[in-house]
Amino acid sequence: MRTIFFHNEPKILGSFGVGGKDESKSPYCKHFDTLFNDDYWGEDTFELCERKMYINAVQGAIGSAGLNKSDIDILFGGDLLNQIISASYSAREMETGFLGLYGACSAMAESLLISGVFIDGGYAKNCIAATSSHFATAQRQFRTPLGLGSTDTPTAQITATAAGACVVGLSGAGIAKVSSATVGRVVDFGITDATNMGAAMVPAALETVITHLENTNTKPENYDLIVTGDLGIFGRDLFLDNAKKLGYVFENYTDCGAEIYKGNKNAPCGASGCGCSALMLCSYYLDLLKKRELKKILFCATGALMSPLSTFQGESIPGVAHAVCLEAI
Amino acid sequence: MRTIFFHNEPKILGSFGVGGKDESKSPYCKHFDTLFNDDYWGEDTFELCERKMYINAVQGAIGSAGLNKSDIDILFGGDLLNQIISASYSAREMETGFLGLYGACSAMAESLLISGVFIDGGYAKNCIAATSSHFATAQRQFRTPLGLGSTDTPTAQITATAAGACVVGLSGAGIAKVSSATVGRVVDFGITDATNMGAAMVPAALETVITHLENTNTKPENYDLIVTGDLGIFGRDLFLDNAKKLGYVFENYTDCGAEIYKGNKNAPCGASGCGCSALMLCSYYLDLLKKRELKKILFCATGALMSPLSTFQGESIPGVAHAVCLEAI
Repeated sequence: MRTIFFHNEPKILGSFGVGGKDESKSPYCKHFDTLFNDDYWGEDTFELCERKMYINAVQGAIGSAGLNKSDIDILFGGDLLNQIISASYSAREMETGFLGLYGACSAMAESLLISGVFIDGGYAKNCIAATSSHFATAQRQFRTPLGLGSTDTPTAQITATAAGACVVGLSGAGIAKVSSATVGRVVDFGITDATNMGAAMVPAALETVITHLENTNTKPENYDLIVTGDLGIFGRDLFLDNAKKLGYVFENYTDCGAEIYKGNKNAPCGASGCGCSALMLCSYYLDLLKKRELKKILFCATGALMSPLSTFQGESIPGVAHAVCLEAI
Repeated sequence: MRTIFFHNEPKILGSFGVGGKDESKSPYCKHFDTLFNDDYWGEDTFELCERKMYINAVQGAIGSAGLNKSDIDILFGGDLLNQIISASYSAREMETGFLGLYGACSAMAESLLISGVFIDGGYAKNCIAATSSHFATAQRQFRTPLGLGSTDTPTAQITATAAGACVVGLSGAGIAKVSSATVGRVVDFGITDATNMGAAMVPAALETVITHLENTNTKPENYDLIVTGDLGIFGRDLFLDNAKKLGYVFENYTDCGAEIYKGNKNAPCGASGCGCSALMLCSYYLDLLKKRELKKILFCATGALMSPLSTFQGESIPGVAHAVCLEAI
């Protein structure tokens, strides 16, 4: 059984989201906690900028929970960069324990799910779940040098320059409670196009969402919103089409990657990157849950386990997606 | 508090270790479950060989526990390769949930610790903790092309070509029980020499081992063995020297990286790599615990969070180490 039920009401006690240049033009930007307007945020490299975003999100979340660094037992986190350097160098600044994760863009849900288990079971007092991505660091690592000025294919998504963090604990008022979660499975339908991450992730997203519905004996209409991570516009439509073929109609469904850059003509297929769903969750959806404008959502962050090396060696791109059910308090 | 006490006796139900060419010459080789004698094990690339080792260890552990694939809820694992491709492509072959981890060479202890929490708290029925490394894949990714024939510095360790996996659960006879664990902190003493991983990891190893002793109110002599992951020969000596300065004398102490290649003149500083401590734990130390030749050990796998990109950008190499206390049943 891959679905976990939390009986002790682990809560999100604080959350914080950071966004960059494109995020500042998002229709959701007024919800974002911190925004900056270039690619460096005063740092020397894109990687140092991403690290600053990560640390900023973590510190912001701790502050938003009304806690101090010393109140945190464990930081759960990862990012897209090799050796998860944004997360691990950020953890160096903390005095907490660090358990590094890698689930590509599923990191926000993965870290939230594991935090939920540690808190629900009493294995830690307060945890942080955090992740980040940066357009230029991801481009450097996964794709072609920016200086080449390569044009995008129609299905290519833009990696969000964003970070998000949540503090999970039992005590305090809390923004929302974590009520259940489903661990994803690695699913591969043979996509080899590294500029079509949406298609690579849709099978895993569908598998996880449907497994969660089945295991919790719920229907799509029992959620105010089912929100996937970063399938993008093409992926979102593919998700809905394939869901219909499997007999599921999702009325209250959206995708963070399809939403965050709405109206931005430079991002016709939307956004990707761990930070995309992290920022949308930590700054926007949690805000709506806090105000009780949403009562119950299923947050399903999706990751394409793409590796440039595997791609060069002829491998297809598997996907993974983890789902966390969040409810207003 | 970073130390976790397991009250429901999560047990290691099965374990399996795989080793390559150099491991076949190890003084411990008769304990290793499967050995092969070249760099490919019949595969086309080093990376596919590592994946085969990973899958083999996972399947072997399931078999050794007398279980089937369908009995496993979640695979916790990672490896050294970018996007943890050995673990994630192996997970594709399984029908279980997958939570990918990255803790460099601390992966065996990290995955065991998180598995312990999921099992102890009743969040999963059976989990697998697994990791791997391969000399040639690590060399390709982290160091210089093998064809260059670069000579090693005296402190350079050889990445073990090895994999190990444990099944953790509550039911069944079990090999050993997981009684407590300490989550590591990211510690950085400013080492910038990428050929001296031992020195980069010693501060984290010491911090974790001492924190575990303090939090569990135990002394080094309360353990039949305290075993670190892959500090290597230089790192092992550095660990003991620095421990003494901090007032700790470890009589029953060893390091998997210092042990596995004992007598091998081509590895004067010993071994490194996730697979090193994984193989030694899964095939050797668990064997001794099963036979009750050891009653209680503290297994502390150590990771150097080295990133070629960060190193090129002038960063030092932080370390992290997680400790798991295992006791004979």
